[in-house]
Amino acid sequence: MNKIILLLIAVFGLTLSASSQAQTAVTDSSRFAAYWWHSKDMYDHLPDIRNEIIFLGNSITDGAEWFELLGNKKCLNRGISADITEGILLRLDAVTKLQPKKLFIMIGVNDLSRGMTPDEVIVNYRKILDRIRTESPRTRVYVQSVLPVNPATGMAKNHTNKTPQIMELNGKLKELAAEYGNTYIDLFSLMADSENYLPRSFSVDGLHLTYKAYKTWADAIKPYVK
Amino acid sequence: MNKIILLLIAVFGLTLSASSQAQTAVTDSSRFAAYWWHSKDMYDHLPDIRNEIIFLGNSITDGAEWFELLGNKKCLNRGISADITEGILLRLDAVTKLQPKKLFIMIGVNDLSRGMTPDEVIVNYRKILDRIRTESPRTRVYVQSVLPVNPATGMAKNHTNKTPQIMELNGKLKELAAEYGNTYIDLFSLMADSENYLPRSFSVDGLHLTYKAYKTWADAIKPYVK
Repeated sequence: MNKIILLLIAVFGLTLSASSQAQTAVTDSSRFAAYWWHSKDMYDHLPDIRNEIIFLGNSITDGAEWFELLGNKKCLNRGISADITEGILLRLDAVTKLQPKKLFIMIGVNDLSRGMTPDEVIVNYRKILDRIRTESPRTRVYVQSVLPVNPATGMAKNHTNKTPQIMELNGKLKELAAEYGNTYIDLFSLMADSENYLPRSFSVDGLHLTYKAYKTWADAIKPYVK
Repeated sequence: MNKIILLLIAVFGLTLSASSQAQTAVTDSSRFAAYWWHSKDMYDHLPDIRNEIIFLGNSITDGAEWFELLGNKKCLNRGISADITEGILLRLDAVTKLQPKKLFIMIGVNDLSRGMTPDEVIVNYRKILDRIRTESPRTRVYVQSVLPVNPATGMAKNHTNKTPQIMELNGKLKELAAEYGNTYIDLFSLMADSENYLPRSFSVDGLHLTYKAYKTWADAIKPYVK
């Protein structure tokens, strides 16, 4: 396993260093790679508990204790901080092999932060939805919008300046979900203020979430989780 | 709440920038602070499920899905990446107010990475154990050793060069646990190779853990979790 992992780290590391607009958390690609691979390795090996409800995504998904937040022991966290659509594709088999009952996905803001266009993100997103449909056809998929951000914090600058791209991506995600017969959940509208920004009570850095924000999110998806 | 959080971020940020040997993940103190505060905010507000088994610590605790790993829905993750003994003290009330049934703690390697001596870590550790004994006297506490590291990866250098300090700290933690009537769990000896290093199959970066390492850890503590 070690050789494969080291080879994949090298490949993934190159992918990262090829990104010209790497965000702060990603500039130390070896650290990112280690966390990504450690998390992937765990997700590859955890036992199958049947009828899982999977939360798949990046740091925003990673940051919640979903089963505690939703009071549902079938809710499993499959987020990895700093992940991108390409990362989801590289580790998707660990999710589809479970044949989960439901899958809530949120991904894309890190792709945008690295300079990918919404259309480029959609190309990968389509691959993700194709793979899920093929590999786990009975899984009900919920495509969650990318969340609003807030540049006023001065933090996570390559993310929090992407409001126009996020809104464009969300429009395309809504269409994509309809095309695949998946449910689209518009968390952006639910969580944005009148200027389309993430309110300060929802985030310290304008990107990641406080409990209040997670509670708003959890309450919005509860009808689908049940 | 916002003003308090922002004030505390300022205070905590100063604490971080005062550290002369800050590790890579901590040099961006604003990012660390945001993740720390977001996590603390979540842990402060998640519902009390009674008879919790708490896993308290830094990234090494944070990195596992404990309830999946141990097959026990009472096991709750209260790890925060990059956390230190001082951070544990700042957020300990969110743990003790639950009056958990059991508490597995692992903390200290980030303190050492920043240049604190084992004796300085023990001063804070003693405060942690005092607070738990006072605030949640019926909680059974398990003091877990700091894990071995491996400098051969060339990653996380301020951590992976601390083998002598880790071994010294563990000796003192064993004494401290005995003094407090707590159970000491020597994971270091269980997981270190003959040179006292973390085996490569247990870690990509010489500090954080693969599934194989977490499984070894989980199997070792299972008798205490039950």
